[in-house]
Amino acid sequence: MFGEIDHIGVAVENLDDSIAIYRDHLGMRVQHRETVDEFGVEAALLEIGAAHVELLTPTKPDSGVAKFLERKGPGMHHVAYRTDDIEGVLDRMREEGLRLIDEEPRTGIQDSRVAFVHPKSTGGVLTEIVQPAEGH
Amino acid sequence: MFGEIDHIGVAVENLDDSIAIYRDHLGMRVQHRETVDEFGVEAALLEIGAAHVELLTPTKPDSGVAKFLERKGPGMHHVAYRTDDIEGVLDRMREEGLRLIDEEPRTGIQDSRVAFVHPKSTGGVLTEIVQPAEGH
Repeated sequence: MFGEIDHIGVAVENLDDSIAIYRDHLGMRVQHRETVDEFGVEAALLEIGAAHVELLTPTKPDSGVAKFLERKGPGMHHVAYRTDDIEGVLDRMREEGLRLIDEEPRTGIQDSRVAFVHPKSTGGVLTEIVQPAEGH
Repeated sequence: MFGEIDHIGVAVENLDDSIAIYRDHLGMRVQHRETVDEFGVEAALLEIGAAHVELLTPTKPDSGVAKFLERKGPGMHHVAYRTDDIEGVLDRMREEGLRLIDEEPRTGIQDSRVAFVHPKSTGGVLTEIVQPAEGH
C-alpha cells in the first residue's frame, strides 16, 4: 500500500535553531523551506536518504502544530507514508473502518497531496498519507 | 553522516493488537519479532520500504518504554538513523557537545549496535543511532 516512509514531522519552537541542529550536528542538508498556509505552519525539509525530517513551526495560533506544542512541547508530531494513489488508499481505509481526519486530500508542502489518519486508528500515531507532486 | 531512516519506534500497550493494525490496515509485513532484554521490551519490525516501523511494548516495569507509556500513552517514541560507523558518529557527537544517553553502543534488535541521543540535543526527539549487524 505504501512505498516507504516519506518523512517524520517534528514540531519545533524555533525553525532556524532546529534547522541548525539537524544541519550542523546531524549532517542533513536543507532541501526546501516553505510556509504552508493550509496547515498554518512554516516547514523545512532536511534530507535523510530518500526521506526527510520535516521541521514544523506554527504560523497561526490555532494550527494543529501550535496546539501540539502547547500540550506536549517540541518533539515528534507525525509520520508520513508515501503512495502514488492517495484516493485508493483513502478508499481502502474508509472501507476498513479507519478514522480519517481528512476525507479528501489537501495540499501539503511542495504541492503534494496529503491526508491525515486519526491516531485512534493507528495505535496512537498521527499518520499522514502523502502523494508527492510530479517531479518531487 | 547517516544513510537513511532505519526505523521509527512506536510505544504500544498490546503488541499483537498493534501488529494487526499495521499489518492488516496499513499493509506492512511483519519481518521480525524479538524480546530485547537490554531494553526491557518486546519488539516487532514491520517493513516499509527499506525502513521499519518498530512496535515496542515493555517487558519490565522500569524500562524506558514502560515509563514513556505511563507518562504519555501510546505513540511515537523515537526515530533511528542508520550508520555503518557508530563509533565515528558518537565521537563526532561528543566533540560537538551533544548529550548522549549511551556513551558506548549497546546491543539492540537483531544484534544491531545502537546508541541513544538525548532529546535535549535533537529538538525534543529521542534519537537512536543504529549500525545493523552484518546481513541485516
